[in-house]
Amino acid sequence: MYREESDWYLYFAMTTMSINIAMCKHSSSFPSKVSPSSGRKPIGFGYRAGGSMKAFKPNASSTDANNVEDNSVTLVLLAGGVGKRMGANMPKQYLPLLDVPIAVYSLRKFATMREIGEIVVVCNEEYDDVFTSEKISKPLVIARPGAERQDSVYNGITKARKETKLLAIHDSARPLTDLEDARRCFEDGAKFGAAVLAVKCKATIKQANKDGSIDKTLDRSLLWEMQTPQVIEPNLLKEGFQYVKENGLEVTDDVSVVEHLGKRVQITEGSYYNIKVTTPEDMFIAERLLNEEPKLRCV
Amino acid sequence: MYREESDWYLYFAMTTMSINIAMCKHSSSFPSKVSPSSGRKPIGFGYRAGGSMKAFKPNASSTDANNVEDNSVTLVLLAGGVGKRMGANMPKQYLPLLDVPIAVYSLRKFATMREIGEIVVVCNEEYDDVFTSEKISKPLVIARPGAERQDSVYNGITKARKETKLLAIHDSARPLTDLEDARRCFEDGAKFGAAVLAVKCKATIKQANKDGSIDKTLDRSLLWEMQTPQVIEPNLLKEGFQYVKENGLEVTDDVSVVEHLGKRVQITEGSYYNIKVTTPEDMFIAERLLNEEPKLRCV
Repeated sequence: MYREESDWYLYFAMTTMSINIAMCKHSSSFPSKVSPSSGRKPIGFGYRAGGSMKAFKPNASSTDANNVEDNSVTLVLLAGGVGKRMGANMPKQYLPLLDVPIAVYSLRKFATMREIGEIVVVCNEEYDDVFTSEKISKPLVIARPGAERQDSVYNGITKARKETKLLAIHDSARPLTDLEDARRCFEDGAKFGAAVLAVKCKATIKQANKDGSIDKTLDRSLLWEMQTPQVIEPNLLKEGFQYVKENGLEVTDDVSVVEHLGKRVQITEGSYYNIKVTTPEDMFIAERLLNEEPKLRCV
Repeated sequence: MYREESDWYLYFAMTTMSINIAMCKHSSSFPSKVSPSSGRKPIGFGYRAGGSMKAFKPNASSTDANNVEDNSVTLVLLAGGVGKRMGANMPKQYLPLLDVPIAVYSLRKFATMREIGEIVVVCNEEYDDVFTSEKISKPLVIARPGAERQDSVYNGITKARKETKLLAIHDSARPLTDLEDARRCFEDGAKFGAAVLAVKCKATIKQANKDGSIDKTLDRSLLWEMQTPQVIEPNLLKEGFQYVKENGLEVTDDVSVVEHLGKRVQITEGSYYNIKVTTPEDMFIAERLLNEEPKLRCV
């Protein structure tokens, strides 16, 4: 369904973008295949989930008045990853994207939100000045990474000020978060105690048996791909960390500690362009999205 | 884990590719962060699942002698999609990719395989000559699309010659299939009756409740994203179609009709670069992959 949705954008983007592809012999027949009566406008690259595709509107707090107070959210920006599992140190979050290190996008953008009260950056010492040299209007606190991602999150949240109402944990390798999506996620976090930005799975996903045969096809309409920010009330997150530690449970991401407690986690539908920049193509896509969607840029 | 795997490639690709990104102030510290003792070579864009990432080697028939006879496979190439759900006709599979229509890549490449005995193209009449004008060394048969994808597949397989041993159904919007991956999928199809190319899910996937809250986090190590070709013995596929029709069951893809019968479907681990070209970025990625991996090109 999403594939079909994006088809339409493709046509327009293909005809307006400066793609260096010679037209093939059949390309002349394309224009006649687009319904001239359609008044629908293309939106960027088709990465944006359109309004009609928001799944949970009835429950989403975006229809309510904003329930998140000024300066009540602590952003925990995770920038400590070093790719250690590969035995190679290459922190992708510091690669330059249109001249600005990837991690700085989130710092600058989130700092403009009235809901954000402070930003805790979790990074290695040698990268401190990437963040401290930035002139932002919110208090900046530095924390150090731990052995695992989970430890880094823990180190980050213990640096948050006591009066904070919500912790928003964000992966610094996601520079293209739309602040309106983040805002709705904050609202859902305040309403439900825990919320996470996510997009619907596009592909057919199947579950395998250990022998590599297919166990079952999963119902795609229920499957969501997690992104960040993940927004959680401080006490709930601390309780979850304690529970997970005591019971030796696996933590795949931040809201999963809340799931382990049996507490509700709300999905806030985000945008496909909130990508994690990992491969060179992601850098290209990120550049192009920044050119197409000025609101994703940092100031 | 896969993200980490690709980090390493990213560094090398970033330093060798002609990406027009000015180096930021911290970029000079990157080289010192790469272990000089690592002799690992970058492979393309990191889209390739490395050897160590093949999950099912013990069962995979790639370790056996090839069990697929010459000319015993019918390729059913699906090229009938028109994006009708959006009310716009824009068959992406005919867009030019480095001057060649996307759908022609599969036609030309699969025609070089000794296992392929014939190719049945499912397309609308106006695009017949895209395929019939190609000089390929295998018999070419044309079939017409049906109302749904499933109907198109059915129309295609009914045109296959009676002596065919395997039907390989392939989406013409996937021009970058590695023939070695396809070959292993044929082998698994011959061995198990049904097989499908797939890659492991990279993202954290969760299942939602109807109210938009999270039901559960799925075990990522068991989740696979389906691709094509999907390879099935003719009688099994026909039996499956019959069963699905009689019981009004939902069919998400071709091997799911076999799953409905309760019969085994084997996953053949493929490559991340076997993408479905749907968005403009996909076109860019496809172009770059073709430049990096000559074996993916069509002759």
